[in-house]
Amino acid sequence: MPSVAIDEAMRRAVLLAARGLGTTSPNPVVGCVLLDSAGEPVGEGFHAYAGGPHAEIVALAQAGERARGGTAVVTLEPCDHTGRTGPCSGALIRAGVARVVIAVPDPDPVAAGGADTLRAAGIEVVTGVRAAEAEAGNIAWLTAVRRGRPYLTWKYAATLDGRSAAADGTSMWITSEPARMDVHALRGATDAVIVGVGTVLADNPRLTARNLRDGSLAIHQPLRVVVDSSGRTPADALVRDAAAPSWIATAADVGAGPDGRVDLSRLTTELYRRGVRSALLEGGPELAGGFLRAGLVDRVVGYLAPRLLGAGPAALGDAGVTTLTDAIDLDLADIDRVGTDLRITATVRQREA
Amino acid sequence: MPSVAIDEAMRRAVLLAARGLGTTSPNPVVGCVLLDSAGEPVGEGFHAYAGGPHAEIVALAQAGERARGGTAVVTLEPCDHTGRTGPCSGALIRAGVARVVIAVPDPDPVAAGGADTLRAAGIEVVTGVRAAEAEAGNIAWLTAVRRGRPYLTWKYAATLDGRSAAADGTSMWITSEPARMDVHALRGATDAVIVGVGTVLADNPRLTARNLRDGSLAIHQPLRVVVDSSGRTPADALVRDAAAPSWIATAADVGAGPDGRVDLSRLTTELYRRGVRSALLEGGPELAGGFLRAGLVDRVVGYLAPRLLGAGPAALGDAGVTTLTDAIDLDLADIDRVGTDLRITATVRQREA
Repeated sequence: MPSVAIDEAMRRAVLLAARGLGTTSPNPVVGCVLLDSAGEPVGEGFHAYAGGPHAEIVALAQAGERARGGTAVVTLEPCDHTGRTGPCSGALIRAGVARVVIAVPDPDPVAAGGADTLRAAGIEVVTGVRAAEAEAGNIAWLTAVRRGRPYLTWKYAATLDGRSAAADGTSMWITSEPARMDVHALRGATDAVIVGVGTVLADNPRLTARNLRDGSLAIHQPLRVVVDSSGRTPADALVRDAAAPSWIATAADVGAGPDGRVDLSRLTTELYRRGVRSALLEGGPELAGGFLRAGLVDRVVGYLAPRLLGAGPAALGDAGVTTLTDAIDLDLADIDRVGTDLRITATVRQREA
Repeated sequence: MPSVAIDEAMRRAVLLAARGLGTTSPNPVVGCVLLDSAGEPVGEGFHAYAGGPHAEIVALAQAGERARGGTAVVTLEPCDHTGRTGPCSGALIRAGVARVVIAVPDPDPVAAGGADTLRAAGIEVVTGVRAAEAEAGNIAWLTAVRRGRPYLTWKYAATLDGRSAAADGTSMWITSEPARMDVHALRGATDAVIVGVGTVLADNPRLTARNLRDGSLAIHQPLRVVVDSSGRTPADALVRDAAAPSWIATAADVGAGPDGRVDLSRLTTELYRRGVRSALLEGGPELAGGFLRAGLVDRVVGYLAPRLLGAGPAALGDAGVTTLTDAIDLDLADIDRVGTDLRITATVRQREA
């Protein structure tokens, strides 16, 4: 059983880790608290951006000599490999810590092994402290690494009766400005935004993360991905502008499924290879159906406007479900009011357990 | 400005009134608190069922002689006419109260005039105390009387993407058992339940208010109304059983619109004439579209299941909306979790202001 000090330090480490959300990709978020041999906090840190120092290194630098004989409390197993920075396992050994407390083991085969290295050096290693909280705080990265594809959030906006546009096609705007601003915040915290070429041809969106009031761009911009089987994205489409990187993913590029269209599973594998750990699928209904049918969606964020249309395109197209028992089941996570709208966040119950 | 005692008494009267919800029709819910000349509560009452004593009479009976010189605090203007019971205005005058405090005036031309009668008898009459609360507590009855048609709630169940059944027609059950039990509670608190003949032919529902666990019937049963333009409801349909009253409303019965089908506006007028003050519209999508198009829906209660289908019939059919600016706008009132589902309660923003 961890002491109160250790448990409290892990709680703090999980909070610290969250400060890195949206900027650490392709790395995880990590938080670390260092306690001296008497159990007093002497250093803390979090991983802020890929290429920057890891959480343990920041905390060790703060603690200096006071780390010797102390305890490092860290949300994720310390890395054991030399990437853009040296291995944290070695740094902890050199600093002379007596114990390392870990919430969640590292699922990445390249970086894992830190716990073994620490144990081999005579350091006591405890795992599993506040594991559920730490896991939830890192869910996108952990899921991505475990599956070898980005953690995918399908975002949609619809009326209460599930329409994403009126019968004549008008859809600007179904939801309120606060809901649309919220979408830009989602984009700014994700590695990639995915749309189908149909959306590009119909709406010519920028797909950047920006301040809707003054148009200024957020610091972090997602990779803009257009699923465009036959390469129909116009040369002057806004999604190709210089505001953010873009990738027009054609079937020739990615590989095609039996229907000759972009193979979505291969698309997500390729995105992972390019460092994308989280992605936001923004539309349209057909593409969303395709991703859901392929079991590639982890989370759904729906903005429901308190309006009724009774006609017009549905928010979701064919997802391969024909009978009720095959419905795609979700677990409601959060329900919030955003402006005059409702935001529903739900996770997709995985079928392959 | 009302004193604290009066304000507090009205708060109490509004709570008392709510105890009658679901059983007073075609009468309103009313609560009454009697204060003696020193401002002490000496009696209280509410209207429990049509034909039973009015709230003021119950409170006066409790107070007896202590009502003399005191104040009657009542949520709705005391009635001035002799229906199944005598006028409350006369009873208050005979009891010798010095003052009557009213939240909301009576919009019913038959029963109104109580305030004038009281004033003519030399009683001080104050109106408007906690009017918004009292109005909200009586919204169904007040709306019905003002418009001469029942306060209509459209209830639907759908997936998050707005489907009321899967592509193959399977719809039992989209929502969880707690949500379906909640619908039975709604039925038990309403005067009538309305469905289209299509629903009767497809599902043969009972439409009674009952305990889903043991099948026992609720004390109060709504009038079961089938909108059945050409009289296709089978003779052995469950909706015709003896468990509750039924009305198969045909076009010949009610009158037809230009399309030859039941004129929904005339249907609601006839329901009002029959004493129906609140009604629950349960389906299907076409009938809901018809009522919405005609501006006859006051409130929407949607049970949203956290599931996705991507295909299958929509919860709402043509409601006469072709472009986004003509969408039927709602105001979200309550969002609750019921079992694993979401219940969204919203009021329809009236266009004719």
